[in-house]
Amino acid sequence: MIRDSAATKARILEAATAEFAAHGLAGARVDRLAARAGANKQLIYAYFQSKENLFDSAVEANIGRLMDEVPFDANDLARYVQALFDFGRAHPELARLARWHGLERPGMMLKLPQAADSMMRKASALAAAQVAGEIDDALPAPQLLELLLALVHSTEAGDPADGAGADPAALREALAIAVHRLTAPQRKPTP
Amino acid sequence: MIRDSAATKARILEAATAEFAAHGLAGARVDRLAARAGANKQLIYAYFQSKENLFDSAVEANIGRLMDEVPFDANDLARYVQALFDFGRAHPELARLARWHGLERPGMMLKLPQAADSMMRKASALAAAQVAGEIDDALPAPQLLELLLALVHSTEAGDPADGAGADPAALREALAIAVHRLTAPQRKPTP
Repeated sequence: MIRDSAATKARILEAATAEFAAHGLAGARVDRLAARAGANKQLIYAYFQSKENLFDSAVEANIGRLMDEVPFDANDLARYVQALFDFGRAHPELARLARWHGLERPGMMLKLPQAADSMMRKASALAAAQVAGEIDDALPAPQLLELLLALVHSTEAGDPADGAGADPAALREALAIAVHRLTAPQRKPTP
Repeated sequence: MIRDSAATKARILEAATAEFAAHGLAGARVDRLAARAGANKQLIYAYFQSKENLFDSAVEANIGRLMDEVPFDANDLARYVQALFDFGRAHPELARLARWHGLERPGMMLKLPQAADSMMRKASALAAAQVAGEIDDALPAPQLLELLLALVHSTEAGDPADGAGADPAALREALAIAVHRLTAPQRKPTP
């Protein structure tokens, strides 16, 4: 019984990811989502209370999956950023999902426990690597983290047509170069 | 008569910017927009044909305004990026407008003549500065341009709540540092 419930919830979250990525919160239809999940609407509301909460839950489930599949590594940031890039290429619906969520659920992202916790742990790891002298400390760790993630997001068109002209291998290589530029410890001038 | 028509169009585009930034294309209501512009719906359709075309036109009008107010300068990229940051702070609705547009009019941005033309001229100016040795050439100019713009967009929450914790002065300074890191010509190792 417990296992069935978990499997049903997972199917609903998967269908919600597709529905919200395609149509956003306002455009999503719970009956279409229910049909895709093979679940009925009443059950969806019993589990998730509201369309808004289902949207938040779908975002959070995908953050959890991202963190499992692309662990953060403050000691090899170029590889981390390239792994994020590869994940985004493999799951192009997630950039759309995140963009709708930012517009239609303003302020909610950092209220999702997984997201807030993940950002805090990444920033702490960066700060520790800065103290250890492994990465440059000109930028405060939280800002550096935002810039690194922004670099990856800039390559995720959220719109298949936008990226049509860009060569993925070139973008991937450019990311590594940019990360190196932003994080390599600078040689101090000899006094 | 011509002057009146231009003034009315400008009022409609201003109202459209506010309406689409707040609600996106699907959520926008042309009657609310008409009331705000002090124009009637029939006139709006006469000028702009469709809600979709009005959305595109509002985006394009704002791109034109951005280009007038923040001219690109390949020779002082840190200042350019900070000016973009300041413009975004002064007009927070424009980041939201651009994000809705990316989601709801996929592929259209680069079909807007002003946007496509602006990106091409910026990339050419960057490439020329690379050839002149004024900025580093490790990254191809179009990618470098995307990364620089992504840095600015990462500081535009598109969501007032997201940026609540960040100190704007610190972000602004971090941008200049990041741009310097990404673009300063690297000293070649002595052979």
